[in-house]
Amino acid sequence: MEKQLQLQNIQNFLTNYQSKIRFNTRNGFILINPNDIVYCEADGNYSEIHVKGQSKKVVCYNLFNHLFFVKYFSDNTLILFFIPSLFHKLTLNLNFDTENQIIMKKIAVILSGNGVFDGAEIHEATLTLLSIANNGAEYQCFAPDINQAHVINHITGEEMPETRNVLIEAARIARGKIKPLSEYNVDDFDAIIFPGGFGVAKNLCTFAFDGPDCSVNSEVESAIRNTVVAEKPVGALCISPALIAKVLGDVEVTIGQDTETAEAIETMGATHITTNHGEIVVDEKYKIITTPCYMLNATITQIAEGAENTVKKLLELT
Amino acid sequence: MEKQLQLQNIQNFLTNYQSKIRFNTRNGFILINPNDIVYCEADGNYSEIHVKGQSKKVVCYNLFNHLFFVKYFSDNTLILFFIPSLFHKLTLNLNFDTENQIIMKKIAVILSGNGVFDGAEIHEATLTLLSIANNGAEYQCFAPDINQAHVINHITGEEMPETRNVLIEAARIARGKIKPLSEYNVDDFDAIIFPGGFGVAKNLCTFAFDGPDCSVNSEVESAIRNTVVAEKPVGALCISPALIAKVLGDVEVTIGQDTETAEAIETMGATHITTNHGEIVVDEKYKIITTPCYMLNATITQIAEGAENTVKKLLELT
Repeated sequence: MEKQLQLQNIQNFLTNYQSKIRFNTRNGFILINPNDIVYCEADGNYSEIHVKGQSKKVVCYNLFNHLFFVKYFSDNTLILFFIPSLFHKLTLNLNFDTENQIIMKKIAVILSGNGVFDGAEIHEATLTLLSIANNGAEYQCFAPDINQAHVINHITGEEMPETRNVLIEAARIARGKIKPLSEYNVDDFDAIIFPGGFGVAKNLCTFAFDGPDCSVNSEVESAIRNTVVAEKPVGALCISPALIAKVLGDVEVTIGQDTETAEAIETMGATHITTNHGEIVVDEKYKIITTPCYMLNATITQIAEGAENTVKKLLELT
Repeated sequence: MEKQLQLQNIQNFLTNYQSKIRFNTRNGFILINPNDIVYCEADGNYSEIHVKGQSKKVVCYNLFNHLFFVKYFSDNTLILFFIPSLFHKLTLNLNFDTENQIIMKKIAVILSGNGVFDGAEIHEATLTLLSIANNGAEYQCFAPDINQAHVINHITGEEMPETRNVLIEAARIARGKIKPLSEYNVDDFDAIIFPGGFGVAKNLCTFAFDGPDCSVNSEVESAIRNTVVAEKPVGALCISPALIAKVLGDVEVTIGQDTETAEAIETMGATHITTNHGEIVVDEKYKIITTPCYMLNATITQIAEGAENTVKKLLELT
């Protein structure tokens, strides 16, 4: 019976088509009933959609690489299945501009260096970028053009007698495609997200050294405040919610289960919600989404889950 | 008809149960027919499996976090579905020791620094670790304890007047959990894998400077040769296949489509196969799996796909 239920769900899923899909082409757009789509093929930025009894249709959309099957559409939500697995799917929330071109949502990713102990946590940062791309949005990395608080040898945990720049080191995660945070303009983005790592608490603010009495880098504070004022969502992973709490005060966030950090966050006027791996807390008032990531003793699989859940909610709230 | 075919495939998939699953408990193991499993719940390292008409069974297996449904088992292959999506699945190849405990496969990941232009490519390295964990295996990072060839500013592309150590920088990707490559013992691992980045061609060998006449770091060469002699598989992403070609000579590899690099690889005695995003080339003789990753103009989603395909094949060949 349980299995029957599963099959029934899948059957409903596959047959519950509600409308035609609007696909953009070079010259405009076409409408296709998903029931009529036989399969899709990708060629660079363009995909060919094979429709029952019709000639090939060329559609411009660069996420169609390796697309296998378009299965569902309703309220601008398109579920795509990819080779090699029927079960590898991608759900996109598509927006169209006045000329019916697809608008990719743009997320600003704020990095605090490159390495968990003195900069951005690398897994959290990379998996945030992956989640943004996997969910059909674009990212632009930013970092403040300032020196790191210090440089930590990640094997010994000892300080090294060096000076490194947050922006230059963060550029390693961004493969060189990064801008100074001073150039962040809220009008150009749909949302902003902060991966974790001690760099957030050492370089973006001084929480690691000063606790609730910490100061916040002025560019970082402006970026958060301007985003919130524009009613756009802010994501924060790992220790980043402490930064958000310092800037906004009266906000609901999570850093997982660490009592001392949770108390410090509440001292700054915020409410802390205890969470487990991959879970998110959403502050509806300010549109703040937080998740614990490596603030818990997590596996990289759990980091991927936390980043994915945060990014999905972030895109939902745009 | 196409849709009917899909449903038929799913139906076959769900009904094609061939044997009972052996689950390890605190005291031994139990056998459960997958058809009888209603659902599973995770609690830390332990999962409760609810079986039709039976009491709860507690199973020790730490990958069962967030497990939703066990659907298939045959020849030690277990397909797990996870919350929140029916379509988020994980396929594990399980091995049991003489005491019926599950043996996790162990993969050695060789890093060449931390940053695409002078070290390990961060996305490729991170997504290799993620794929290993997602496929039910364990990883241990290694790097040679040597100075980098140079340090590159990843914004300007200019050399910086600094000296950095490959092992210490690579520790940032590994969150401190890394060993010097001199400690790699082939007996302790099931496979070895090299993410890409210029560090492979600058620090692990001198291919970036000397082309086909390059020299290879002796520890790196030993690690590759010992793994191949032990008939264990070697994975290589991005530019790493050039390193493999230099060490093994007569091997089939891919670096994607770059003509100049492909020619250099053939000059070293190897055969180059042209590939596109996410595709792998398998040299059956030496068990070498290669994929182009950022040697093509790839998105991070395509890097994840290449890493996943390489790791899956690597585990298959163990």
